[in-house]
Amino acid sequence: MADPATISPATLLKDELDIVIPTIRNLDFLEMWRPFFQPYHLIIVQDGDPSKAIKVPEGFDYELYNRNDINRILGPKASCISFKDSACRCFGYMISKKKYIYTIDDDCFVAKDPSGKDINALEQHIKNLLSPSTPFFFNTLYDPYRAGADFVRGYPFSLREGVPTAVSHGLWLNIPDYDAPTQLVKPLERNTRYVDAVMTIPKGTLFPMCGMNLAFDRELIGPAMYFGLMGDGQPIGRYDDMWAGWCTKVICDHLGWGVKTGLPYIWHSKASNPFVNLRKEYKGIYWQEELIPFFQSVTLPKDCTSVQKCYTEIAKQVKAKLGKVDDYFNKLADAMVTWIEAWDELNPSGASKSSDLPNGASK
Amino acid sequence: MADPATISPATLLKDELDIVIPTIRNLDFLEMWRPFFQPYHLIIVQDGDPSKAIKVPEGFDYELYNRNDINRILGPKASCISFKDSACRCFGYMISKKKYIYTIDDDCFVAKDPSGKDINALEQHIKNLLSPSTPFFFNTLYDPYRAGADFVRGYPFSLREGVPTAVSHGLWLNIPDYDAPTQLVKPLERNTRYVDAVMTIPKGTLFPMCGMNLAFDRELIGPAMYFGLMGDGQPIGRYDDMWAGWCTKVICDHLGWGVKTGLPYIWHSKASNPFVNLRKEYKGIYWQEELIPFFQSVTLPKDCTSVQKCYTEIAKQVKAKLGKVDDYFNKLADAMVTWIEAWDELNPSGASKSSDLPNGASK
Repeated sequence: MADPATISPATLLKDELDIVIPTIRNLDFLEMWRPFFQPYHLIIVQDGDPSKAIKVPEGFDYELYNRNDINRILGPKASCISFKDSACRCFGYMISKKKYIYTIDDDCFVAKDPSGKDINALEQHIKNLLSPSTPFFFNTLYDPYRAGADFVRGYPFSLREGVPTAVSHGLWLNIPDYDAPTQLVKPLERNTRYVDAVMTIPKGTLFPMCGMNLAFDRELIGPAMYFGLMGDGQPIGRYDDMWAGWCTKVICDHLGWGVKTGLPYIWHSKASNPFVNLRKEYKGIYWQEELIPFFQSVTLPKDCTSVQKCYTEIAKQVKAKLGKVDDYFNKLADAMVTWIEAWDELNPSGASKSSDLPNGASK
Repeated sequence: MADPATISPATLLKDELDIVIPTIRNLDFLEMWRPFFQPYHLIIVQDGDPSKAIKVPEGFDYELYNRNDINRILGPKASCISFKDSACRCFGYMISKKKYIYTIDDDCFVAKDPSGKDINALEQHIKNLLSPSTPFFFNTLYDPYRAGADFVRGYPFSLREGVPTAVSHGLWLNIPDYDAPTQLVKPLERNTRYVDAVMTIPKGTLFPMCGMNLAFDRELIGPAMYFGLMGDGQPIGRYDDMWAGWCTKVICDHLGWGVKTGLPYIWHSKASNPFVNLRKEYKGIYWQEELIPFFQSVTLPKDCTSVQKCYTEIAKQVKAKLGKVDDYFNKLADAMVTWIEAWDELNPSGASKSSDLPNGASK
């Protein structure tokens, strides 16, 4: 078992992780994160009007890309990157050269744990990513690799080594990540429950992945982290991270990698406007009733041994099976292919990280 | 959504729930549980020497069965009830006439929540059983039916009604439920982490069910809660609850019912002897490497619409596929059939509670 004590808390992976932040405003929120983020490199993806100047607090090491930059770098392939939607953040995943990515929204602040201590969210994500996942059997005491925990009686020994962790999905105190109808019905609900747990989402189970507080192993799963076509000119919004989550989970299940959820919490400060959200979401709300069964039944052939191959195969199935739901999915399927082409152009070597397909890993 | 405020904390289900306790000693541990258990009826299953008198503290309403009683009531079918092993507790499930069962070990005491308040474990189990489960999609904020929680963005609305909850699996502070090798390696490890969560174990995922602190809907799933052949004359022990958990989960998945784990915690006071445990467990430790894949691949035909039919079908498959692992599984398969016959004899009406097999519920 990995001894969590061997994972040093001091500026972990400083040279191996980029923090990706999509924004349309000055990044004052970084002040609160300074003790935790300053050692890391930031990739800021500026959405909206490229002529607007975004102020970044002094002392942060960053690069910033606006729409003009994206168009220049990707040329015609820039069509796969959303505009006027935080889905544009995935450009940052593609342009990064690091092994790990942490992405956070600019309305997310440092939360406190029950003892009143500031939570270093990034440190917890890194711990999650550096310790294995256990997707093949459920451990009732949650993450068996945490200090003070282990596998319980009845957990097969052959599965205790775990598998690589591809994704670490963090949660939110204060404003929960609710859809527009729930926001409208429960405008005052706040999440005050600090659940001190990290767990692997079992193989074969889909989940709603939120992009607000999310880390992943870019070398393992990066090409699947496409946030789709949202916002300007598209019939839908606020499903960018969901789409990425469904695709990612199906591919992780196929390739034998793990997805964790739970700690760390961030403090989500402001709820987006539920009326605006309803307009963005309403097609997604009924489409998802067909999308979930689609993703639940996707199977990937054995020769899909890289994320790119898996993703291209999913794009093909999206076109074949979801095109009839709405023509939007034909466009999205094309954009998925374009995304992979652009990814491989920007990441020519190591572009086809492949899995050994360990026993029992393939569906 | 179920409003948890409508679930009254005051002596819930007093006439609909039995507490089943297997024991070989005086039940002094009940003193600590008096405020919570006294309103309920207890079924005490006395293991070992039937001539020994078991003292039950004053004021509890109980019935007690020793081995002579079991032999008298079940006749030759008593062979399916284990002797000199806490697996004998399942006789209590069978003899009960109530809708719900809570079972607890006699070395389990009242735990405290982080605020220092005594945890009414039974009340939390009842809340878990009375609110639905969500096995078809993962909710990242855990049980969406708890106060202050809900379904997050991206959770399909068609699945928000949930399904009936058949099992509530509670956890343990202090001594964790470790197997003998882990006990030997980590003799001093104590579970001090209070995780304030209840969650549904997703469909298709097996888990290690511990019988120490467990509640279930006997009318729904009772006939699957057979704790197998353990202890006296058997080559294995400490897999009684595991066996029940695997069978139960496969049947719940097939019939579209939910299994929850998490809260409530009890305080587990004494670790059993790891050397004795190792002797009881060692065959289980290698057998489980074949048992888990077996249960992961069990499929039940559509005409298995009752728990009894499902269970009998599993017995058949156990004989066909596990008989070659060890002859013990042939005996166990026969005992499974005997158990169902005995169950139906003692529970002549309502013995075939059947499921409507809702859409998406069948494997």
